[in-house]
Amino acid sequence: MFAKDMKLAYLLDFYIDLFDDHTAAVMRAYYEDDLSLAEIAAGEGISRQGVRHIIKKCEEHILFLEDRLGLARLQAVKNEALAELNGIRNSLPDGAADEVSRGIDEVITKLKGV
Amino acid sequence: MFAKDMKLAYLLDFYIDLFDDHTAAVMRAYYEDDLSLAEIAAGEGISRQGVRHIIKKCEEHILFLEDRLGLARLQAVKNEALAELNGIRNSLPDGAADEVSRGIDEVITKLKGV
Repeated sequence: MFAKDMKLAYLLDFYIDLFDDHTAAVMRAYYEDDLSLAEIAAGEGISRQGVRHIIKKCEEHILFLEDRLGLARLQAVKNEALAELNGIRNSLPDGAADEVSRGIDEVITKLKGV
Repeated sequence: MFAKDMKLAYLLDFYIDLFDDHTAAVMRAYYEDDLSLAEIAAGEGISRQGVRHIIKKCEEHILFLEDRLGLARLQAVKNEALAELNGIRNSLPDGAADEVSRGIDEVITKLKGV
């Protein structure tokens, strides 16, 4: 019921900048530093129940954001596309037109920029 | 000061799903249907000042979201990359290796899916 969800740990990175410093600190302590609720509570000067509440609310909001915006999904597809383009670029036959390799390089540079 | 901002009209599409129905209706009436504040106020049964307040708050939130998440920017770059890949695909010399065109097709399909 209150298990640490690895999908959330992954999504956190994409959306953490939307949250206030206090919430972000609690979420990082829990998901990145792997601290217990009790440890986070002591560090933040709030109750264990308060920590649990912050994590739960933030998790729900992150899942809502990804459901509506799909930012993590979009970035994942972008990264897959980049990997495939690099593969194509590196396997171009020697006789390949310069334009083709230059064109692919441009797309790679563009995608890497975001 | 309260001018209709075309950047916001563009960003609205990316983030509108995050807002409640009432806010979304006001924003669409203003930015998509081009209604006046007075017209929206009459339609929604609230004051003109209330409409102005909703629009202002929603605009600020959308600018905050794009600043932190860059979803519109990412989608724009994806679309540019798609256009360039289509260009490369269509200008491949006749002798181009099948793998290259197949590879580019795969990347195009992948990017189109998000």
